[in-house]
Amino acid sequence: MSQLCRIGVAIDSDLLDRFDSLIAKRGYSNRSEAFRDLIREDLVETAWQSPDSTVVGTVTLVYDHHVRQLGEKLTGMQHDFHHNVLSTLHVHLDHDHCLEVLVVRGKASAIQKFADALIATKGVKHGRLTITTSGTDV
Amino acid sequence: MSQLCRIGVAIDSDLLDRFDSLIAKRGYSNRSEAFRDLIREDLVETAWQSPDSTVVGTVTLVYDHHVRQLGEKLTGMQHDFHHNVLSTLHVHLDHDHCLEVLVVRGKASAIQKFADALIATKGVKHGRLTITTSGTDV
Amino acid sequence: MSQLCRIGVAIDSDLLDRFDSLIAKRGYSNRSEAFRDLIREDLVETAWQSPDSTVVGTVTLVYDHHVRQLGEKLTGMQHDFHHNVLSTLHVHLDHDHCLEVLVVRGKASAIQKFADALIATKGVKHGRLTITTSGTDV
Amino acid sequence: MSQLCRIGVAIDSDLLDRFDSLIAKRGYSNRSEAFRDLIREDLVETAWQSPDSTVVGTVTLVYDHHVRQLGEKLTGMQHDFHHNVLSTLHVHLDHDHCLEVLVVRGKASAIQKFADALIATKGVKHGRLTITTSGTDV
Repeated sequence: MSQLCRIGVAIDSDLLDRFDSLIAKRGYSNRSEAFRDLIREDLVETAWQSPDSTVVGTVTLVYDHHVRQLGEKLTGMQHDFHHNVLSTLHVHLDHDHCLEVLVVRGKASAIQKFADALIATKGVKHGRLTITTSGTDV
Repeated sequence: MSQLCRIGVAIDSDLLDRFDSLIAKRGYSNRSEAFRDLIREDLVETAWQSPDSTVVGTVTLVYDHHVRQLGEKLTGMQHDFHHNVLSTLHVHLDHDHCLEVLVVRGKASAIQKFADALIATKGVKHGRLTITTSGTDV
Repeated sequence: MSQLCRIGVAIDSDLLDRFDSLIAKRGYSNRSEAFRDLIREDLVETAWQSPDSTVVGTVTLVYDHHVRQLGEKLTGMQHDFHHNVLSTLHVHLDHDHCLEVLVVRGKASAIQKFADALIATKGVKHGRLTITTSGTDV
Repeated sequence: MSQLCRIGVAIDSDLLDRFDSLIAKRGYSNRSEAFRDLIREDLVETAWQSPDSTVVGTVTLVYDHHVRQLGEKLTGMQHDFHHNVLSTLHVHLDHDHCLEVLVVRGKASAIQKFADALIATKGVKHGRLTITTSGTDV
């Protein structure tokens, strides 16, 4: 089982001062937590670069629900990839626009392909794949 | 009310061929839609660069729910910014890890500050602010 | 040989207005050129994602030339990859700091590895690999 | 004058193992240097977000030198911003294409505007502003 280590890091006092004020502004109360977050961000980015690694992410879509059969189409695509979609959230932004977030898990390459297809669908005004982690690897 | 225009774009045939094969791979069936998506992506990026513009986005958080009082803390922060949080989705990734997505709306600067604070919270392993659009401006 | 085509793009008038004012602010005098730049940017990004494609880029390094043997080390590494380094430019930023730009060409994976090694060298304060194109593919 | 500190960072052993193997692959021989680089990268990014901060960067341009008067135009623009251009490097990529790198220094907002104008120039196939540091602030 993993345990907490305490490592030493050599760092110039000026650089440390600048880092401390940056993380204070972001709301960190603890410098070690800020360091760990920098490391995790780096690991998450790297994991997504190998197409075969299993990753977790979200796909955010904004679309106009008046576009004919768009809802059915997006739902159909999600069923084709149902084993990659953990859950979805739907928000009615205004009279016309919906925002949908899908939480996705799977091989990086498959998730990328799935997100590309959703974003390319006509009527989807904006879409983005956000990469994160299952939590176990970071 | 907005209407559909048809504009002419001068483009080298080689460049067009390469673009067509790129967007085919991404799943576009329609070249105009691919062009419009490039434009919208550019507009969304730009909107987020002016701190006073009203924006829509998602905040994705992965955390270990065993961390003491983390759930309460995150909920408390969300209530402080409740006028910026439209909705949230919670997924149990495994025995230990939760993924939470918040759909947020507000001034770009306030949303950034809120996201920074959530991500900086101890126990949040990874977090990311994803920018998108209300749909009305793109 | 490649020739100039004129294609039609269907686009909502509101979206077009927003795009026109964005590109005017950036200094474009010609809408087609702005479209072509969006396409080329997309193609360049994509080329760098396949490790075997031949790419062109720059590596920017800022370092303190007082660090012992740093200059020799960086020069030595460049000679190991001399077939990937087309040219370099050196600027004395102040009494202590140098900025060096390397123009590099080669397989995306090799260039990434080379840039990683340069940036990781002790005494290099900041480094970045910038991706661009040989011009022939865009 | 700045001096070297040694700080303690609490970190989970699993996370540390993953970080150590990531940085080994990148060529770091020293963990503290990898930590400092993460910090500096973060500081550089942040500096560029405040339009009034003085920054250093490079502008990379790839263009076809056969385009009529393009060379003169780019040179003219550089003279208009001559106080921001420290030096330039020119590489002949092939019969048609040139790559030019400008090392630039100035207010973040002015540099952005200058880079936008260069990149928007007709005949410039690809351009990118790369942000770095003067070395004194990191």
